[in-house]
Amino acid sequence: MSSYPFVKGHGTENDFVLLPDHDGSLHGKLEAGRVAALCDRHAGIGGDGVMRVIRTEALAEIDPETRELGAGTEWFMDYRNSDGSLSEMCGNGVRVFGRHLAEEGLIDPSGPVPVGTRAGVKVLTFAGDGITVDMGVPTIGSPTQVEVAERGWQATNVDMGNPHAVAFVDSLDDAGTLLQEPVHDREAYPHGVNVEFVVQRGERHVAMRVHERGSGETRSCGTGACAVMVAAALLDGACDTDGPAEDLTYRVDVPGGTLRVTWTAAGRMLLAGPAVLVAQGVTDL
Amino acid sequence: MSSYPFVKGHGTENDFVLLPDHDGSLHGKLEAGRVAALCDRHAGIGGDGVMRVIRTEALAEIDPETRELGAGTEWFMDYRNSDGSLSEMCGNGVRVFGRHLAEEGLIDPSGPVPVGTRAGVKVLTFAGDGITVDMGVPTIGSPTQVEVAERGWQATNVDMGNPHAVAFVDSLDDAGTLLQEPVHDREAYPHGVNVEFVVQRGERHVAMRVHERGSGETRSCGTGACAVMVAAALLDGACDTDGPAEDLTYRVDVPGGTLRVTWTAAGRMLLAGPAVLVAQGVTDL
Repeated sequence: MSSYPFVKGHGTENDFVLLPDHDGSLHGKLEAGRVAALCDRHAGIGGDGVMRVIRTEALAEIDPETRELGAGTEWFMDYRNSDGSLSEMCGNGVRVFGRHLAEEGLIDPSGPVPVGTRAGVKVLTFAGDGITVDMGVPTIGSPTQVEVAERGWQATNVDMGNPHAVAFVDSLDDAGTLLQEPVHDREAYPHGVNVEFVVQRGERHVAMRVHERGSGETRSCGTGACAVMVAAALLDGACDTDGPAEDLTYRVDVPGGTLRVTWTAAGRMLLAGPAVLVAQGVTDL
Repeated sequence: MSSYPFVKGHGTENDFVLLPDHDGSLHGKLEAGRVAALCDRHAGIGGDGVMRVIRTEALAEIDPETRELGAGTEWFMDYRNSDGSLSEMCGNGVRVFGRHLAEEGLIDPSGPVPVGTRAGVKVLTFAGDGITVDMGVPTIGSPTQVEVAERGWQATNVDMGNPHAVAFVDSLDDAGTLLQEPVHDREAYPHGVNVEFVVQRGERHVAMRVHERGSGETRSCGTGACAVMVAAALLDGACDTDGPAEDLTYRVDVPGGTLRVTWTAAGRMLLAGPAVLVAQGVTDL
């Protein structure tokens, strides 16, 4: 095969094709159709998205506006959705990105690692088997509601850079209901919304399923897990909307695994969990 | 990564993980859980099955009964379903297997290439972009019927080593109906049945969707395409159940691409179509 390198990895089964392109030689060659071909789960390698692994300096020469977005970073996560469209950020994706940088010896994982993204610099920390990413500050909106198959639930409105509606339900097993496209308040969410269905599992322990706008149900959603933690903490009375006085951590089970989400005393959301590389090789797609 | 090599490929989007293991060093290490992990579409590489690429002589030393099944062959397709269970044969799989052997220079594609399988020796021929496999002789049973969502259709009963019920329908777009598990005649098919829904597209040209027992709807099915061709030829009056006087070829569109099926004057079914390798590398799954 005439070919170029790839790496495949996942974080709680959000999975990605990474393309090492340190100096930007893929510039102009990563059109939407090619990204879609790579992400195709039968005719391609398969993934929820593609991450170009590029030096921030090299990307800034191609796309000057990324210089500021990646200020102070050596590496930039240039992320594309599986349909080829650009996306700002992916909480599980950036953790897998960090795993790749560490395995290749491209960063020093003993301290915080800043990574450039189109949503600005994200800071990773490595501990044991997991990688944590600082997902920023949540914005809590007015209570809303969602509806599926003529059943309605009250929902907490949490923005994590993207919009979420978090509904507590009696059971996650009701696939006939929960797998359908939820109806949401179009005034509260003019650009659509990601909907999380949540059950309590124990003290500071919840489980969720997620319906992502444009994708349907997925195995995991990093911003969704953060939004769910905020809603659960508020429901539990563990803190108010200003956040906790001390760091507060919840376990959030997703269909693809387990995440831990901490709402810090400084008001920031930390998303922690596994990030695994499963294959590397070459492709001519 | 501590790792071993793999190849990923597909035939009309039936996709496979190939494990080159020429001398059988994976013996005892390819348990069901590992196969399932490789085939997992989010946490693994992803595929409808795994094919160990092994010399017939090496496999015969491990598993003596394969010696006769692969008599006269140099290479054996040791196939496993995505759940890890052994399977005798896969029409699209053996064509992808042949592509790999040819690309690696392990066989001479200018003449017929016999390959050992647990269903006996299958003969491949290479022409242009496609690979053809001789799928053997169809057995035509008594007319049957299938039912989905309280709608029923007459169906042709064709056995290609595995059982099929072929129903001609008005449209393939009725996903609400066609994606559900069909109800079949349990006396005619005591071990379940693969059901094909077929529409006419033109002269000697049909399109199909398939519901595979145990898997649900898939992108393609090699034996299914052969069964469909037999049913279409009979419906068209192009031949009777003894087969055609001269080789008769139909185009069969499947969701994942296009196959061509020939019922030869000798009564055998030849399945022809693309076989594509998309990636190769190493994995530690």
